[in-house]
Amino acid sequence: MTIPKIKQNKERRQRFLECAMDLFSEKGYFDTPVREIIIKSGFGTGTFYNYFIDKEDILKALLEEFADEIIFSVSNYYTTETDFYIRFIETKRVTMEVFAQNEKLSEIYSKVAGASEAIDKCLKEFEDKLIEFSTRNIEYGIKKGAFNQVWVPPIAHAILAVEKFLLYKWLVLKAITKEEMIEMVVSFHETLAKGLVKKD
Amino acid sequence: MTIPKIKQNKERRQRFLECAMDLFSEKGYFDTPVREIIIKSGFGTGTFYNYFIDKEDILKALLEEFADEIIFSVSNYYTTETDFYIRFIETKRVTMEVFAQNEKLSEIYSKVAGASEAIDKCLKEFEDKLIEFSTRNIEYGIKKGAFNQVWVPPIAHAILAVEKFLLYKWLVLKAITKEEMIEMVVSFHETLAKGLVKKD
Repeated sequence: MTIPKIKQNKERRQRFLECAMDLFSEKGYFDTPVREIIIKSGFGTGTFYNYFIDKEDILKALLEEFADEIIFSVSNYYTTETDFYIRFIETKRVTMEVFAQNEKLSEIYSKVAGASEAIDKCLKEFEDKLIEFSTRNIEYGIKKGAFNQVWVPPIAHAILAVEKFLLYKWLVLKAITKEEMIEMVVSFHETLAKGLVKKD
Repeated sequence: MTIPKIKQNKERRQRFLECAMDLFSEKGYFDTPVREIIIKSGFGTGTFYNYFIDKEDILKALLEEFADEIIFSVSNYYTTETDFYIRFIETKRVTMEVFAQNEKLSEIYSKVAGASEAIDKCLKEFEDKLIEFSTRNIEYGIKKGAFNQVWVPPIAHAILAVEKFLLYKWLVLKAITKEEMIEMVVSFHETLAKGLVKKD
């Protein structure tokens, strides 16, 4: 039996991504040479370069999948709850739970910012994806008459900013616990939601 | 005429701080050796070590002064306005203007996060100072009956998180202008204030 080429590709790609994630988490992104990712994967150098251009390209792919997972989990929550106030708050809990369940990726995300233009570009794509997703959801709430008419981008940026900052406070500074992080994010959004949701 | 020793110290210290700030801004914090700061200052190596332990110690001092300047400007604004809703919003404009006027320091702050434990410690002190200041101001609003009873730390963290994220978006990513940054921070706080301020 031959494994279909498309399936083979997907698995190899996933193998490289997982090895990279483990090494970035153990040794730090900057102290992990591509060579080590290749050795750990068990594949050859030529194979690696069929999948990724360089180290930033793996980081980009890891963050892209991560953003998709967050968006998928939140979208999934939306199908279970129709109240706009509750949705606005509880989707932040869902988001933080995805961050918490993917501790290695979250730590990489929290630690690499600001180091170089190439990395900032990777992070920007990840963050823009999440900001655009928030923007669409808030705009939907406004369109449906549930939210006040507000300038949406500042709110969408604020949501990610708070999530990112408290994630950093948990994973990098270790100044709060995972549970405190989630409760702080949720509590903040309760206050914000009161300013956002229309009073009847 | 002899310059009083206390004055002399203060000026030398300031000279070291300014040279460090210029070099960190030009070449980046990590690519600036202490040696270059000393050469630029015109003082000797021995003199430098009478003022600072190492490079992190200068960064710490720069950020400490920066936090003091922000707190001073905001405190000053408080003496000109008594309405809690307006104060809550406009102090964020004041804060962003201080960040904008100190572009070099703001850029250093935006770029060094996550690089090492020592640096994260410096940043944490700076950020804790600003978070504590916000916390006290919000608690005052609650005590005076102007704000709803909320769990204050999440709000205080969120304020800094949004300011920091939009500062990074302006100075590092160059994705928004200075004016857009300020207006986005203000606009977000207008929505947040609606959730915070008590309805009569």
